[in-house]
Amino acid sequence: MKVVVVAEVREHERRVALVPELVGRLTSAGLDVVVESGAGAGALHPDSTYEAAGASVAAGDDALAGADVVVSVQPLEPARLATLRSGAVTVSFLPAAQELDVVRAARDAGVTSFALELIPRISRAQSMDALTSQALVAGYRAVLVAAERLPRFFPLSMTAAGTIPPAEVLVLGAGVAGLQAIATARRLGARVRAYDVRAASADEVRSLGAQFVELDLPSLEGAGGYAREMTEERAQLQRDLLAPHVGSSDVVITTAAVPGRTAPLLVERAAVEAMKPGSIVVDLAAESGGNVEGSLAGSELDVGGARLWGGRNVPSQLPVHASRLYAANVVNVVLLMTGDGKVTPDFDDEIVDGACVTHDGVVRHTPTRELLEGP
Amino acid sequence: MKVVVVAEVREHERRVALVPELVGRLTSAGLDVVVESGAGAGALHPDSTYEAAGASVAAGDDALAGADVVVSVQPLEPARLATLRSGAVTVSFLPAAQELDVVRAARDAGVTSFALELIPRISRAQSMDALTSQALVAGYRAVLVAAERLPRFFPLSMTAAGTIPPAEVLVLGAGVAGLQAIATARRLGARVRAYDVRAASADEVRSLGAQFVELDLPSLEGAGGYAREMTEERAQLQRDLLAPHVGSSDVVITTAAVPGRTAPLLVERAAVEAMKPGSIVVDLAAESGGNVEGSLAGSELDVGGARLWGGRNVPSQLPVHASRLYAANVVNVVLLMTGDGKVTPDFDDEIVDGACVTHDGVVRHTPTRELLEGP
Repeated sequence: MKVVVVAEVREHERRVALVPELVGRLTSAGLDVVVESGAGAGALHPDSTYEAAGASVAAGDDALAGADVVVSVQPLEPARLATLRSGAVTVSFLPAAQELDVVRAARDAGVTSFALELIPRISRAQSMDALTSQALVAGYRAVLVAAERLPRFFPLSMTAAGTIPPAEVLVLGAGVAGLQAIATARRLGARVRAYDVRAASADEVRSLGAQFVELDLPSLEGAGGYAREMTEERAQLQRDLLAPHVGSSDVVITTAAVPGRTAPLLVERAAVEAMKPGSIVVDLAAESGGNVEGSLAGSELDVGGARLWGGRNVPSQLPVHASRLYAANVVNVVLLMTGDGKVTPDFDDEIVDGACVTHDGVVRHTPTRELLEGP
Repeated sequence: MKVVVVAEVREHERRVALVPELVGRLTSAGLDVVVESGAGAGALHPDSTYEAAGASVAAGDDALAGADVVVSVQPLEPARLATLRSGAVTVSFLPAAQELDVVRAARDAGVTSFALELIPRISRAQSMDALTSQALVAGYRAVLVAAERLPRFFPLSMTAAGTIPPAEVLVLGAGVAGLQAIATARRLGARVRAYDVRAASADEVRSLGAQFVELDLPSLEGAGGYAREMTEERAQLQRDLLAPHVGSSDVVITTAAVPGRTAPLLVERAAVEAMKPGSIVVDLAAESGGNVEGSLAGSELDVGGARLWGGRNVPSQLPVHASRLYAANVVNVVLLMTGDGKVTPDFDDEIVDGACVTHDGVVRHTPTRELLEGP
């Protein structure tokens, strides 16, 4: 069967869904790998390196012709989906609620489409969890962006000309990206504080050598019918209580993004303005509305004396290793469905079932179907 | 006596010679500190922070009027030197051979000028050694510049999607900047190799967790009358032997700069072109001719698939802490010459004697005098 790696066409997308290093994992399972010419360019893999690894390279739609499986980072465009045979499989990121045109095209073409965002978070699926692998990249890069821009040292520096204290770094959100940011900032010698609404993350934060910020927020219990109002009031209180921590930091990195949802506002503009001149704020959630008021994806803005960096496709900014990790996720998904050289999704497998968006002319993912076709 | 901190005027100079934190060390020695308005702006210290620390602020030449001591990062301009009283003291960087106009103006004004580059490298003078303090800053920043631009991770990353090996970093020159670069790259988790012509630096390199590169260079002994030719031949052989190490690195950082001299060429263009796509080369010696063929101070150039970053006033790119360390050096020099609230250079002190360029209408620094006035 023919697995096709397409060239990404969306702006700022430098990743590729398969890297030469992992071609052999598919070919040794009896699959043929065809790479669209130039697919690896953004991730610095020329066509020749794919050929050397056992793939063939073809130009544009010639690559796609006769595809059994198509792998990509961003969803395949509707026009290309329409050229696939019924029963062909696609594996990619596919934020279904935001990409209804793609879902419709996949359904109408009879394509079996999988969204990596929907891979269940069970331990057997960890090696397929592209949200996690790409969040690792984003968390690492957030710290480097901040350290490169900060007019101060990160580490404690003891010199003959005196002692420089370490930079103060505040990480908001202690998910995968946040924990990786904490670890990277600690590597560089900063003092790190971190906050997460999930008090349970305190142990993970502390195990990385950071201090967990405890906010004196009222309990949510007993909110009764006023739950929503309470939530907004609580969110404002959270921002108010975080503000002094922001103000005493040299670097703030916010990572509270939930795929497909608007990011919570954690830091108001006034809090950024109150930071020391030269401070750096990195908002990894800028693409989904931002954790920081006024942040703009892909832009660096001056807010008071601070610099506010809004992330835009941050994993793509480390394209070699973001692609390497993503490709492993994709390969693991494809191999999960492969036997005897054939890719045959088994919907009795909860990973296959959970990650499938469309199959056989039907939108299988219920929330997406309701969005597209009504309840 | 009045110590004046002037605003720097040279392009790309963001440092300031005194920071608010250290004003008190001069005032408590009985000196008055006057800051030229805006002097601290580039290092993010507004005038008000100097006033709060006990200095007064004055605009432009009003600040300089009646100065007994003038401190700056770059040499004071000849026109301003001409306004100083005879016997006034200046403390700054002063690369005398490249700044003969400054030396002439200082001599003619009867100014006692000190060059921080000439501070003897004795242990008592370590706290005044601005070349060292600024090299620390440059070495740190070189690594951040590289890590922020590299499309790969620096650290070993063990993830559910596979293991990413650490980046390979090569540091050429193991002086202060090179050692700081090694330490910072190690902090970030890279594998580091380093080379220095001084085999004695191997122990320092290894103590930081890096591998010392040993080149099979012929002994210099027995060169007889062909010393110069042998040196050029040897330099070429050194480049040839370094080339494979360059080619197997993700990042190369070169630090072999000698103040006032042309930097040695260590890496030829072909060696950079042979690096993996996406590799980063940081040349901290770009301002003095460059360790890397084709590097240009203040520019990022694509050389083959690699990116070549040429440093230009790199310490100024971390202006807060570069200024903090530089200011400590300056304060220590001024206080060395201060007693009973008066700054009175004692030329029996080898530090004062060694660092003095002009005094009482005479160029005391012999090589500079010969350049200016003939042998």
